[in-house]
Amino acid sequence: MEQLEYQEGRTEISHMGKVPLIQRLTADFPIRNASTLTGVGDDCAVIQSMPGSPTLTLLSTQTLVEGVNFDMMYTPLRHLGYKAVAIAVSNIAAMNGTPRQVMVSIAVSNRYSVEALDELYAGILLCCKRYDIDLVGGNTETSRAGMVLTVTAVGEVAASSATYRRGAALHDLVCCSGDLGSAYAGLLVLEREKVTYQADPNFQPDLDSYDYVLERFLKPEPRLDIVRLLAEREVVPTSMIDVGKGLADAVLHLCRSSHCGCEIYEERIPIDYQTSRVCSEMSKNMLPVSCALNGGDDYELLFTISQKDYEKVKSLSEVHIIGHITEQGMPAVLVTPQNTTITLRAQAFQGTDQ
Amino acid sequence: MEQLEYQEGRTEISHMGKVPLIQRLTADFPIRNASTLTGVGDDCAVIQSMPGSPTLTLLSTQTLVEGVNFDMMYTPLRHLGYKAVAIAVSNIAAMNGTPRQVMVSIAVSNRYSVEALDELYAGILLCCKRYDIDLVGGNTETSRAGMVLTVTAVGEVAASSATYRRGAALHDLVCCSGDLGSAYAGLLVLEREKVTYQADPNFQPDLDSYDYVLERFLKPEPRLDIVRLLAEREVVPTSMIDVGKGLADAVLHLCRSSHCGCEIYEERIPIDYQTSRVCSEMSKNMLPVSCALNGGDDYELLFTISQKDYEKVKSLSEVHIIGHITEQGMPAVLVTPQNTTITLRAQAFQGTDQ
Repeated sequence: MEQLEYQEGRTEISHMGKVPLIQRLTADFPIRNASTLTGVGDDCAVIQSMPGSPTLTLLSTQTLVEGVNFDMMYTPLRHLGYKAVAIAVSNIAAMNGTPRQVMVSIAVSNRYSVEALDELYAGILLCCKRYDIDLVGGNTETSRAGMVLTVTAVGEVAASSATYRRGAALHDLVCCSGDLGSAYAGLLVLEREKVTYQADPNFQPDLDSYDYVLERFLKPEPRLDIVRLLAEREVVPTSMIDVGKGLADAVLHLCRSSHCGCEIYEERIPIDYQTSRVCSEMSKNMLPVSCALNGGDDYELLFTISQKDYEKVKSLSEVHIIGHITEQGMPAVLVTPQNTTITLRAQAFQGTDQ
Repeated sequence: MEQLEYQEGRTEISHMGKVPLIQRLTADFPIRNASTLTGVGDDCAVIQSMPGSPTLTLLSTQTLVEGVNFDMMYTPLRHLGYKAVAIAVSNIAAMNGTPRQVMVSIAVSNRYSVEALDELYAGILLCCKRYDIDLVGGNTETSRAGMVLTVTAVGEVAASSATYRRGAALHDLVCCSGDLGSAYAGLLVLEREKVTYQADPNFQPDLDSYDYVLERFLKPEPRLDIVRLLAEREVVPTSMIDVGKGLADAVLHLCRSSHCGCEIYEERIPIDYQTSRVCSEMSKNMLPVSCALNGGDDYELLFTISQKDYEKVKSLSEVHIIGHITEQGMPAVLVTPQNTTITLRAQAFQGTDQ
């Protein structure tokens, strides 16, 4: 048998960022098939099943690990099933596409019953129904501990509408959907209640006044409504990415792929009042804008549009113009209300999806 | 927050078979999209990206769990990477298709180093290179314990050549590729050496004389060569499935999907001499045919052909005609050399993929 040569050196996975790790692991992989238009490095892989086909196939896969990406202490299984599909589908939305199919692979320990899986699948069904998606495959394996859930989403997009991370151009407007930081605020509330519950198991949390931020964390929605609204107005974004790990991370990915810089105006970043309230409850040092920049799990869309499309987009209440693209070589910066600029760095909070 | 209603009843997952479990979980899922030709229930999902398109897209996903589907005591990571891709791709072969892309999702604990992942990806790269497949996506997550590996394979097949489990017809010939039971024999050898090693860590296993069965278990090959040979002879099988969990399981799936029975001739089942030798070493009660029927991980193809194609197939050295299809209502049986018949039941050994 072959010796395990890898034992010679040892670099901890935690010492590498996730992106450098994936880049290292996939560096030697060439693209051999003409049908592969885009491989690793965007929100989805893009496949053209026949040369010249006007419709492209989009593929994306997402893994959620118990104890890392979700905590069973406060995650109802029905919500988990919904969320797992939603975040895989969010990658299809980020390519300006329409989801059609998902496959769900689950590894579960014997701590979970068949009835528990029924609940999980009820959530999967609910999300599939909501977005007209077919469940077309997957499998269930036993695991030694906990649950690992992998969802592969399949979608389609007209070749003329496909939107990549790489298309942003100088002077394009930077837009985002919905509001940011609220999912992270929801996580903060859940973690606080968990600590209180662990100290006193008779404690009954009162979560009514946190309904919005909790729903944002536990049951996110892919912004397919934005994809549809843009199509109705005949706007094709010049670039797009989903905001899974905070605005800073998304902005930096988009600028790196598009070889450009950008200016984001802090006061334009949409933040819900519940997010602000949670932040002020937690600590006077916890700024809502930090939740937006570095919190995860929002699954909003960050995209750029050409200035000529400004009139078509400005009336969309769920779209916010938060900045503009600057030229290659410029950094991605946050402009504060005091007009100082802060260079953005990716520093997602330790949380649900690192 | 929603209450976890599932706690009311409790059925152990281990008390349900894997197929009934998947059937239960997916029973309420309708097919909504015209592009979904086949959903759950075959080796792959089948998608027609545009109406009337002569090429179909095939999708399959496979999960391998450490401690359940593989044992790090005797699984080199390079082999594991190769095998994970090979078995996902085997499902594409089982639809008579050609693989084009894979996506790889990994959850790993901090027990694994970056160099360990390098080895894993070296195996993935080797299999991709061998079969001209592009790695187009995936992700790496932290896990609390062990490794879970999910590979999604994407392939294509001409609509006129797509082969399902459901097409076997009365009097069709039942064929299988390669030989059966050898991967399980390899597993038996590895388990034996593991026990010896655990008793005496200075023990140096001598595995040279088991090279074939070990390679069969550790580094299986998807039978894309058979797909190509059949195409060259213009044979489209009437039905096909891959043999991942033993011949009995594959035969029963095929007969259930095709609404037919079959007769398999025991003496026609191809078994390698190393498989026979391992069996005789293990126990006088361990029959090679039992390894073929109930052992897993062979990843050969089981398929049926119309009798008119007999002449085209009989000269293929890697294809064995092992029986024929009987009419609906008849059972799937094994005919012994003594001409007694034994009704086949699925009873895969506890092993690597239950």
